[in-house]
Amino acid sequence: MRIGILGATGAVGEQMLKVMEERGIDCELRLFASQRSAGRTASFMGRDVELTLCTPQSLRGLDFLLGAAEADVSRELLPMIRESGAVYIDNSSAFRLDPDVPLVIPQINGEDALAHHGVVANPNCSTIITYMALAPVHRLSPLKTLVASTYQAVSGAGKAGLKELEDQVAALSSGQSVTPQVFPAQIAYNCIAQIGSYDSEGYTSEEMKMQNEGRKILHSPDLKVTCTCVRVPVFRSHSISATFETESHVTVEQAENAISAASGVVLMKEPVATPLDTSDQDLIYVSRLRRDLTSENGLSLWCCGDQIRKGAATNAVEIMEYLMAH
Amino acid sequence: MRIGILGATGAVGEQMLKVMEERGIDCELRLFASQRSAGRTASFMGRDVELTLCTPQSLRGLDFLLGAAEADVSRELLPMIRESGAVYIDNSSAFRLDPDVPLVIPQINGEDALAHHGVVANPNCSTIITYMALAPVHRLSPLKTLVASTYQAVSGAGKAGLKELEDQVAALSSGQSVTPQVFPAQIAYNCIAQIGSYDSEGYTSEEMKMQNEGRKILHSPDLKVTCTCVRVPVFRSHSISATFETESHVTVEQAENAISAASGVVLMKEPVATPLDTSDQDLIYVSRLRRDLTSENGLSLWCCGDQIRKGAATNAVEIMEYLMAH
Repeated sequence: MRIGILGATGAVGEQMLKVMEERGIDCELRLFASQRSAGRTASFMGRDVELTLCTPQSLRGLDFLLGAAEADVSRELLPMIRESGAVYIDNSSAFRLDPDVPLVIPQINGEDALAHHGVVANPNCSTIITYMALAPVHRLSPLKTLVASTYQAVSGAGKAGLKELEDQVAALSSGQSVTPQVFPAQIAYNCIAQIGSYDSEGYTSEEMKMQNEGRKILHSPDLKVTCTCVRVPVFRSHSISATFETESHVTVEQAENAISAASGVVLMKEPVATPLDTSDQDLIYVSRLRRDLTSENGLSLWCCGDQIRKGAATNAVEIMEYLMAH
Repeated sequence: MRIGILGATGAVGEQMLKVMEERGIDCELRLFASQRSAGRTASFMGRDVELTLCTPQSLRGLDFLLGAAEADVSRELLPMIRESGAVYIDNSSAFRLDPDVPLVIPQINGEDALAHHGVVANPNCSTIITYMALAPVHRLSPLKTLVASTYQAVSGAGKAGLKELEDQVAALSSGQSVTPQVFPAQIAYNCIAQIGSYDSEGYTSEEMKMQNEGRKILHSPDLKVTCTCVRVPVFRSHSISATFETESHVTVEQAENAISAASGVVLMKEPVATPLDTSDQDLIYVSRLRRDLTSENGLSLWCCGDQIRKGAATNAVEIMEYLMAH
């Protein structure tokens, strides 16, 4: 098996390597990076792998390419990747809503991946974490509406986001002022309710992913979602407060049983799950499951998951494993 | 005018003193504290005021007593305070839902304060901040439902909460581990979706305040609220993501105009308001006002306000000013 990782030096790319190593996916591995990193090496299963540029030659013969590059880079490279014949599992937002590209969370709609035409898209991180928690209930009765507020870690902005929080805390500790660079305002000791750009209605691009990607993953074109995405000073796990309605009544106990039985999700009744608890692992934790007091058929919950792992790298590797197994 | 502050050495008590000074409320000031602090002095308008124990003698002749003590202390001292004849404006949760005690945000239901029988209650901090933002819309068409997720600063747990965040960040910076004391888990670089104790349905005491206090303040006994209260590593301003339905349709523009025209609230369209922007002042900031995509008559917004000031001390002082003026 020949597998490549595009954007191998970023936070998600590095984690893809780590997840593959942990899962013992032995293969001929090729790591692609920008000019700046090409020539360096990374360790994979005890051997050194050189980082190279992504070219028609370096792609030749690949079975799978895991994409951890930005959307514009992904778009630019697509023709070359298609030419190579590799199945491209892309973590960027470039092709997620393309009707010819399956958008897949293997625990929810793995079979959609089988209908690919060379590209499978990995959903947005908050989208993955939220629907991993909600899908077990959706299988009891279809999700109709969702009001979600997120608590998103700085890792969502990659290594630069992690560094910005660290640097700002250090600067403030020594009495220096800070100048935001990655985030639109100081993130240390602050919350920023703006991730992405605004649409004409005042929703951000990040917020609309929760509705539009959710509709595609759940095959629920009428799902209605109001989402508020907020950056918080947490390093790497995202949390989501989700209040949602199903078509028919689902009791708290039925929802608890469904979540407990689902693969990849853990119901943590007490103590409450925190983003810190869930960092550096693949499970999504669900806490605070209770009746929604505003709606007859509503429930409310809190969920947390590692944004770099199940929210990105792990899900992409799991899509590849699904395709390998089927 | 003779005014007392009960719990004068706490985060809220100190801020009551500061707010009174800023507003030039000249008076004979008496500061009450526990045995531990009695005998110390605090400065008020250039003079030193000695901290004393709260006794029938030290209360004698007071016109107003601002309460910044815990609920159990407040309950214990009530008979003595009643005996003194002072109007007691209590920031604790002790009497908020007592039908004989008005629960007041002066900009919303100031006139309720006039019907007091010696005690007026100051609402919960998140409750004040949220309804300051929603009341202008509620006046256009009554609020029916609210789904709120909070981002609450550590100041909500008083000086000990502020110190815990500071100490944990310092400890982690120097490679030491941390042991949570004030909060149920590490708060540095984390979010904790549990504030207060759980009821039989799985809601916390803090969360139910948003519904029960909101019903009383807005005179809306049927208001339904699903709230998720989350502690975040922010020092002193709370933020709330609020999605709400009104009885009839209110356009985004109508809501914007109503909020812009309301006293004590600022509509900040861009950049988005952050808790840091709103710290150490009395205004509530509203951002991200937009249509709720899940409901015909719904709107969604983000609001921030200083939890110690308008969320506690300032609101109590404003209740006193309202009573003085009427």
